[in-house]
Amino acid sequence: MASKRIVAIGGSDAGISAALRARELDPDSEVTVVVADAYPNFSICGIPYYVSGEVGHWSDLAHRTLADLKATGMQVRTDSLATGIDVTGKRLTVRDADGRNEELPYDALIVGTGAVSARPPIEGLTGPDALGPKDGVHLLHSMGDTFAVMDTLATRHPKSAVVIGAGYIGLEMAEALTTRGLAVTQIEALPEVLPTVDAELGALVRAELTAHGVEVITGTQVSAVTRDPSSDTLHVRATGPGGRTFTCDVDLVLVVVGVRPDTALAASAGARLGVNGAIDVDEYMRTSLPDVYAAGDCAVTHHRLLGKTWLPLGTTAHKQGRIAGENALGGYRWFQGSLGTQVVKVFDLVAARTGLRGHEAQAADRGWTPATTTSRPDDHKAYYPGATPITIRVTGDTNTGLLLGAQLVGRLSAEISKRVDTYAAALFHAMAVDDISDLDLSYTPPFGSPWDAVQTAAQAWVNEHQLDAQRRMLGAA
Amino acid sequence: MASKRIVAIGGSDAGISAALRARELDPDSEVTVVVADAYPNFSICGIPYYVSGEVGHWSDLAHRTLADLKATGMQVRTDSLATGIDVTGKRLTVRDADGRNEELPYDALIVGTGAVSARPPIEGLTGPDALGPKDGVHLLHSMGDTFAVMDTLATRHPKSAVVIGAGYIGLEMAEALTTRGLAVTQIEALPEVLPTVDAELGALVRAELTAHGVEVITGTQVSAVTRDPSSDTLHVRATGPGGRTFTCDVDLVLVVVGVRPDTALAASAGARLGVNGAIDVDEYMRTSLPDVYAAGDCAVTHHRLLGKTWLPLGTTAHKQGRIAGENALGGYRWFQGSLGTQVVKVFDLVAARTGLRGHEAQAADRGWTPATTTSRPDDHKAYYPGATPITIRVTGDTNTGLLLGAQLVGRLSAEISKRVDTYAAALFHAMAVDDISDLDLSYTPPFGSPWDAVQTAAQAWVNEHQLDAQRRMLGAA
Repeated sequence: MASKRIVAIGGSDAGISAALRARELDPDSEVTVVVADAYPNFSICGIPYYVSGEVGHWSDLAHRTLADLKATGMQVRTDSLATGIDVTGKRLTVRDADGRNEELPYDALIVGTGAVSARPPIEGLTGPDALGPKDGVHLLHSMGDTFAVMDTLATRHPKSAVVIGAGYIGLEMAEALTTRGLAVTQIEALPEVLPTVDAELGALVRAELTAHGVEVITGTQVSAVTRDPSSDTLHVRATGPGGRTFTCDVDLVLVVVGVRPDTALAASAGARLGVNGAIDVDEYMRTSLPDVYAAGDCAVTHHRLLGKTWLPLGTTAHKQGRIAGENALGGYRWFQGSLGTQVVKVFDLVAARTGLRGHEAQAADRGWTPATTTSRPDDHKAYYPGATPITIRVTGDTNTGLLLGAQLVGRLSAEISKRVDTYAAALFHAMAVDDISDLDLSYTPPFGSPWDAVQTAAQAWVNEHQLDAQRRMLGAA
Repeated sequence: MASKRIVAIGGSDAGISAALRARELDPDSEVTVVVADAYPNFSICGIPYYVSGEVGHWSDLAHRTLADLKATGMQVRTDSLATGIDVTGKRLTVRDADGRNEELPYDALIVGTGAVSARPPIEGLTGPDALGPKDGVHLLHSMGDTFAVMDTLATRHPKSAVVIGAGYIGLEMAEALTTRGLAVTQIEALPEVLPTVDAELGALVRAELTAHGVEVITGTQVSAVTRDPSSDTLHVRATGPGGRTFTCDVDLVLVVVGVRPDTALAASAGARLGVNGAIDVDEYMRTSLPDVYAAGDCAVTHHRLLGKTWLPLGTTAHKQGRIAGENALGGYRWFQGSLGTQVVKVFDLVAARTGLRGHEAQAADRGWTPATTTSRPDDHKAYYPGATPITIRVTGDTNTGLLLGAQLVGRLSAEISKRVDTYAAALFHAMAVDDISDLDLSYTPPFGSPWDAVQTAAQAWVNEHQLDAQRRMLGAA
């Protein structure tokens, strides 16, 4: 057969994964990746560790070097902006750094344009006179953003910072800036930090932040950021619980309140948009346009428990990109769906989740009657040195007994990130909470217990919600 | 209904788990546990950490204290030996420490007599004049054995030891004695240490032992242990590869070459024995005798891939005991089967396995064509400090693509014990190796990669054994 021409737009997880998979599956395919900036295949998730100083050089953040990518046989066009898709003619218009346009013919196109930082409606952050990097006010999503932050750190020597937002990146950046010696104030509009987990667990994360010197202000909405031109000081004004005003003068402001899908290119070509304005795709990662696929943060996410949603995660982008790359060649690989599995390290604490929380399961309107049980099993046998409790919240459906989700918080040593993976595997297979005790998990006293903490927490849920029924079935009292 | 009388024989994992479950499910049940020694519910797996000095007091090894157990409402009869089962009359004869016999009536009996140390046919270790604890020659399986070892350490101040056997306990004891300052020689009859994993991985464990000063002698069969009565020195004689003689004089000899099921009581009552002479049970943990259940190391093990086998593990004993306790009350819980998931820490290295190795899958004669692929993915992103490779061997069936097993070796920090759990969960659900990439596992740079090491290793297997077929399906070159 004639070699297929595959063009992927986007040099981040989805685009590169698609290109790698296409080259792997068909060594004759002509694969081109169009990258808007000069940094293909960089680890966005690694940025906080570069800012903190734990990663020595920015180039270390590359999953693969440009040379590695080219060695697979793909072409990579950096500093090239995709400006238009001719769906009928199957051509992509690309503008290079010198402003020259070129049309790239394709047999299949993969849109992996990702997401862009949300810019909240805060006075001083929007409009033509919005404060920006030159003022010490930063968004953070790309390598370009990263260099700007590093430039501010190097040239302005800020001693204090406000981080607006306390999601994953916000928390990691609060840690990173604290590690660099800045006094950090973290402001979150919602009542607790890390709002992707239940407030009971978020409170543990808040305590860890506070213990490391971060000032944590929650339930507080930033209304304005202004700059004192004489001193370069940034003045942050916010409204807290009960309308109380909070103000703070700092040298650096970081705005990390989330992202939105970057869909302009696909939308202007006529692609149907879906949940949260993301590009609508089916499980084969096909958009509504012929021979146009989309993957990663720009596309909707099929969720195993929720159906179509939008849940941008690097892991998902890798999976979707790989599938799009295979299907672009004529394959029939189906994206098996996300469970929203996530983990974040905050100083010496780790928080993770997979699946749904109680209110999310309730809102899903699937007939579930969700209930959540908290337990605090040790990570390993208490007699072996270093044992530490893990706070685990297991959510299940009391009608069917099915596992719906799990959230875990514990110390660095407690192997939280892999324990959430066991729940994720159980969820993937739609296990009942009670059946988690049947899993043959490993045990040695330094790392676990004969019933692993994952199972102990599941048993706590069963004992709270099903033991009475089990007793009745046995005819016991 | 009248309250059920449940009697469990054995104070280790199976017997106690059965008793706990029975009490949990039926608060009216009369539950008695008959314990041969004075140490109910002790963690046998923790013994090496008590010997090493990491566990301060032997009583810390108790999963639960006697008071904890009694607080559940069960009776615990310590120093009581079960001597006979009257199956027809449903009575268990028990002899107490003073030699008095008593008959305990039961509605259901659970045999959890466990295993006893194998005593290899080595000159000096068998027969009426066999060397024993008073000579500094020890087996190690019970708390009694443990106290004898500690007595030898305290009173004879041994400076050197031979550990015969390099399985889990042998390795942990080599580490424990080294930690206490003894010069340790480890002798294993098979060609490599930790013969429960492939030799390629065993070699990594051997290197760790050697790096910590343990002399490792493999492929060597100990033929005799003799004691010099004048000096108390123990003389160990062995035959190595090519008939070469190995000799060694030490102060302490530890014999840890495995265990065999303790079935005398059940067999004399007429219970059918099965694989390896263990008590035959069905998936409900029922023996061939009416109202007599067996669980733990004394009973055969239903294996999800092999069917009936004998694979004594604490995790399995807990599961089987819990099921026996439920079914003894009239329940219908089915033991879902073992995968032989195991993990061991050896100094700063961790080795784990689940499922089958290549030759085991071949020998199972189930029509599999097993193949194994080794890979060495990092435990987390290389740019984040502390990244370390994990050696992973994935075994799959090249006919069906099904995962058959996984073995992992890596450093302490690499979360090996929980990563093997992800494979164990995948195996539990009979996943194809290729489908492991569909699992939504957690990712943050300090703990993983966008494709976790578990998935990278699975992809390496697929690329070696299925990529050509995948290419052909796409019509690619």
